[in-house]
Formats: sequence, structure tokens, C-alpha cells
Amino acid sequence: MNPFPRLSAEDQARLDDLYARMSAKKRYFVGYPCNQDFDYTELTRFLEFTLNNVGDPFGGSNIPLNTHDFERDVLAEFARWAEAPANEWWGYVTHGGTEGNMYGLYVGRELFPDGICYFSEDTHYSVAKVLRLQHTRNIMLKSQPNGEMDYADLRETLRIHRDVPPIIFANIGTTMKGACDNLATIRGIMDELAISNAYIHADAALSGMILPFVSEPQPWNFAAGADSISISGHKLLGSPMPCGVALARKAHVDRIARSIEYVGALDTTIAGSRSALGPLVLWYRLRTLGTEGIQMIVQRCMALADYSIAKLKEIGVEAWRNQNSITVVFPRPPAELMEKWSIAPKKGIGHIITLPHVREDVIDEFVADYASALKNEAVISAQPTATP
Amino acid sequence: MNPFPRLSAEDQARLDDLYARMSAKKRYFVGYPCNQDFDYTELTRFLEFTLNNVGDPFGGSNIPLNTHDFERDVLAEFARWAEAPANEWWGYVTHGGTEGNMYGLYVGRELFPDGICYFSEDTHYSVAKVLRLQHTRNIMLKSQPNGEMDYADLRETLRIHRDVPPIIFANIGTTMKGACDNLATIRGIMDELAISNAYIHADAALSGMILPFVSEPQPWNFAAGADSISISGHKLLGSPMPCGVALARKAHVDRIARSIEYVGALDTTIAGSRSALGPLVLWYRLRTLGTEGIQMIVQRCMALADYSIAKLKEIGVEAWRNQNSITVVFPRPPAELMEKWSIAPKKGIGHIITLPHVREDVIDEFVADYASALKNEAVISAQPTATP
Repeated sequence: MNPFPRLSAEDQARLDDLYARMSAKKRYFVGYPCNQDFDYTELTRFLEFTLNNVGDPFGGSNIPLNTHDFERDVLAEFARWAEAPANEWWGYVTHGGTEGNMYGLYVGRELFPDGICYFSEDTHYSVAKVLRLQHTRNIMLKSQPNGEMDYADLRETLRIHRDVPPIIFANIGTTMKGACDNLATIRGIMDELAISNAYIHADAALSGMILPFVSEPQPWNFAAGADSISISGHKLLGSPMPCGVALARKAHVDRIARSIEYVGALDTTIAGSRSALGPLVLWYRLRTLGTEGIQMIVQRCMALADYSIAKLKEIGVEAWRNQNSITVVFPRPPAELMEKWSIAPKKGIGHIITLPHVREDVIDEFVADYASALKNEAVISAQPTATP
Repeated sequence: MNPFPRLSAEDQARLDDLYARMSAKKRYFVGYPCNQDFDYTELTRFLEFTLNNVGDPFGGSNIPLNTHDFERDVLAEFARWAEAPANEWWGYVTHGGTEGNMYGLYVGRELFPDGICYFSEDTHYSVAKVLRLQHTRNIMLKSQPNGEMDYADLRETLRIHRDVPPIIFANIGTTMKGACDNLATIRGIMDELAISNAYIHADAALSGMILPFVSEPQPWNFAAGADSISISGHKLLGSPMPCGVALARKAHVDRIARSIEYVGALDTTIAGSRSALGPLVLWYRLRTLGTEGIQMIVQRCMALADYSIAKLKEIGVEAWRNQNSITVVFPRPPAELMEKWSIAPKKGIGHIITLPHVREDVIDEFVADYASALKNEAVISAQPTATP
């Protein structure tokens, strides 16, 4: 028997159709923070192996088919950008942002088993899911209109619960509005209340790859008091599969480490088997772009966000963005716009993310579609209803 | 600026070196259950996109760049092999076995928040890690010498704790010995004790792709009383990145479902963003092999396991395997053998897994190395020590 038979003609057609559909959709994919602009052709040969980065990337592994050395280089770059204290950080490449958040919240809860987790109402829904999975007490706080945590609410709520350590879940870029919770403000509030036992996890999925490259970043990283940080790889940088990094202060991680003979490693990761391709993708991307290349991408994204806002305002749409954000927010648009352009609505708003695969002519087409959808909507709502 | 600059000569050499090292190691990769024998060249073009299967594969998604339809086909095949009740199952493709186990244990704990999880001492270390993460009470049971759960210990322990529902973690193929915990026996014990509220999760990482294709499988699946099952994709089938399926009875999952507007889906998965490549890899593999192709692979693996046992016995090594297992167990071999052949030792034993990339000539070389390592060891232990 041929060990690698081919697809049937029907299945091959189905696969070709998928490729054609994805190619056609790519241009209009502006509503989610996934950069589609990259070229990893050089890495395709590694699809010949089942590589596996199981275990601690710094611990050595019995499994020789790994990319731990590439993973360590990737982590060192992210740690530098996140201003982690030298030699006092640890991390690993995850399968995506949720795993990084799960990791940070796990470390926080292990340090403070009776702690309460605080997060704003603008936090991604997956966080509530993780807190439930981990059985962690939690309180949702109010947000400000720009999406940032309502610090007055944080202060009052902390004051009521001074008997249990807080585990703060900070959004470094909220999903819908790209707002950053200010770590300096949060640490300041805890100082005011004489709270010394506290943990801060920063969900920097998208903005963790923006803030290190702008001139006036909000306080967001280890230097600003974070205990752990999650940053996505498939968002600003772009990757064929979701990936990210989880970083934490080493002293915290050491407390939950456990020696495991089977993998010949101190396995403190959440996943067991871990993709070795994610680290390779990130390494390739960082080595080819360099810090300068990433800086140029960030500047371009920011300029395109401003261009988009100006164009939307021209047609009467009140678009805006937060400081250092590439998430352009506007009132929830007509339904006909949302499907073609993959707009993810929530409550009264929609947004686009001006990532590198989105270009000016794409924005022009989007704005033209938006204008015509508004016209159609106005016509429909002006028509008399058929039923009395 | 060129958006896709090339690697420096130094970095390119490093990548080439990685490829060469992995190619050289592949032949000797016999100690872990990762099939290295596949060809996914047809799928490399999909590395052009950031596809994302976030959310429920059956729920529809706002993100059009997904492979949910391929994922549903894959799940239907696995559900059929696991004898899931028609239209009463649910599942998704995971990033690996740990996520599938986490999912099953999460569903179990949501159904029985005060339940105690029981698992044998031969269970993979990651399970204790997941139970700690999820704050689930648990008790480790004794194993029998072949690696199977000690049912007498299960019976006695359940009898003591009849006030709380059991959540059984069953190994369908233990990591080290490939032993299957018998679901019929376990259900029988619970009937004896009149325990009606119980949950069984089956970790069928490797054997979940073996037992459906043998003539006399141990009772392991939904028909035998499992409530959820995790099966790996990168083990018997082989995949460039870890992947797997999580399956569960639909009635259980419905209880933990939650409507989320942001992804336009009922998101009951653990991961947020999910790789769309994993489902594509599995789909391609299943469609090209067909049930018959998988059957042939399983038969070949089993025959090679017997061949390996015979060869090892010829050199005086007491090798053995469990019924329907392709894991060949032997006493912990000399250290010099373990590194070259990626043998994962635990306590007094080692093992090899006779997957498709392992061929008879590989086994012959392995056995020859084993024999010479034994001789060297005998010489070393016969030498007088240098110090008094």
C-alpha cells in the first residue's frame, strides 16, 4: 500500500475551494487583530517532522525533536521589550493568548489561593471562562467610556476587600476599544490602601507588540509592576497558527515548579505537548524584521488608523481610537457591512484593526461600503411598514 | 522597506542546521508516541493565512478565515470510532492531549463541583497538574503490575467516599506501559456500590486510534460508559504540531455552554483562538488514509511490536506489551542507549513505541545497540573501583 495516498478528486476540489475562499476573504479581513502579511515559505520544510517542545524551554528535554533553543531566543526578545528584570524572568511560547492569560492567573492564584481577581467589564469573555475553570473568586469592575478600567471603582472595591490579596487582570489593549489599564495608577491605588500582597497580570495580546515601539507608552510592563504578561504572536506579527508568549517573574514560577522525570524537565507549562513551530515562526519573524522592522510596522499601523478615522469622519461616522492603539472604534455599523468586512460587534460599537495587510485602498473601499450601507439603512427605515 | 526581508547568512545556517539535526534524529526517535511518517506538502499553501477556528465548530463564527467545516468532518469520524451516541455528542479539535483531558475534567467538575477525581499512579503527570489548576479534589489509586488501575483499590476507595460523586480519569493506554483501564469493570464496581452520579473521562491519547481498529478491543469508549474522551492526532496519525480531539456527551456540554456575542458563537472550548491547521491536517490524513489505511497502520504497528519483543528476548531482555498495545516495555536500559534512541525512562522501565516511521531495520539496529550497551555495562560493573 502507498503510505501517502492522494486525495480523491472531490476532496482535492474541496481543499482548492477552501484556498480560493480564504484568498478572497483575506483582503476584507479588517475586524480582527490578525496580521495576514507575512511569508514563512522558508519554514515549510519543518512540516516533515512532528516536533514537540513539551516542558520547560530552559530545562532541557528528553525529546530531541524540539526547537527550545529558538524558543529561548524569542522569549529573551519579548522579555527585553517587556522590561523584565534581568535573569529574574521565565516564560514559554503558548498556543495563544488564552493560554498565556490562564498561566498568569494560575500563578497569581497559586501565590494567593484566597485572592480575588479584579477585571473590568471591557475584558475579553475568555477571562471569566478561565477564572471559572480555575475556581478563582472574582469581581468585574466598571469601565470608563474609553474602555479603560474605572479606577474609582477599583479603589472602592479593593477598600471593601482589604482582607484578601487582589489579583489584578489588566487589559493592555482591550479587545473592543484597544484601551490600556494603567499599571502605575493601579499600583498607586494599592499603595494608598497599604496593600502589599498583590499580583498583576497584564493581558497585552495586541498592544504588547505596540507599546515597546512608541515614544510615549502607557505604563504596562514588568518595570511598571506587572507580575506576568501574555502577548500574542499571531496578532501584530502574524502567524499561520495562534501562538504567543507567557512571561512571569521567576521567583513566582519557581514556587509552582515541579520536577517531572518523564520529560526530563521542570514542567511548569500548562500545555503538555507544545508546538515547536510557533517558536520557529516567531524566531523567523523577529530575526528577519529586527526591532527596526517592527517599529516601522507599528508606525505604519498607527498612521493607517489615523487615515481611517479621517476617512470615516468624512462620511459622518464618529470614529476614534485610544492613545497608542491601532483599533479604530465606531458606532455599530449596518449589518450588511459586517459580514463582508468581518466586523465583530459588541453592544453599540464595531471596530477595525489597521494591521499591515490592510492598506489605504482597502480602507477606501471599506469607507465607500460603509457610506452606501448607511444610505440603504436610511432608505429602509424611512419606508412605511407593510403591516399596520 | 521590503516587507519580507531574508534571514542573515548566520541565521539561515542555524535554520539549515536545525533541519539537518532533526532529519538525522528522526530515524532514532522510537521512545515517544509521535508518528513521523506523513506528507502534508499539499497543505503548505495554507501557511499564507492566519486562519483561526476560535469558538464552537458547530456554532458558526464571525471569523471567516476558519476551517470549521473540515473540523466537523474530522470530529464526526472520531465520534463514530468512539461509538458516540448519534446526535448526542459534541467536540472540538484541541492543541493536544492535555487540553482534551483538561476539557473532560472541567466538564466533570462542572457537573459535580464537589466530586473527587480518581486516577491510577500510572497516569501521566500532567493530569495532577490539571487537577491542581482546576482545584478538583483527587485521589491517586494503586496500579496493577501491567499498568492497569488496581480495581480492588478503586472499589475500597469509592466505598469510603460514597457521599461524593466520583470523576474517574481512565487511562486508555497508560503513558509508560500502554495499559487500558477497563471501563466495563469500572462501571460494574460503581453499580455494585449503587453509585448513580458519576463521570468517566477516558484519556485515549494513543490507544483511541488503535482500539477502533482491532478485533477485540477493551471496553473504552462512549458505548462502554465514557462521558468524555480525549484522543491525540499527532500520535498514531502523525502531525507537524500537537493536536487532538476532545469529545463529550452533548447533554453535559450544554450545561456549561455560554452565549458569547463577540465570536458570534457558543464558545464552550477551553482555548480562545484555535489553530485551523490542526483540523486541516487531521482531515487530510483521514481522507487520504481512509479507515482501511488506518487499519493497515495499526496492524503493522502491532506486528512490529511483536517483532521487537522477539528480538529483545533473543538478547536476554525481558520485553513485553499489553493487549492491543504498540508500547514495548523493558527494564530500564543502560544510559548510553537512552540518549541516542530518545528513551523516556520512568522508575525501573523504559519503552519504545512501534509507530509507522519505525521499521524492522531500525529495530535491528536498536537491539544491536542494546546488546552492546549491556556488554559495556557488564564490563564497567565488573571493574574494581578506583577509590578504596
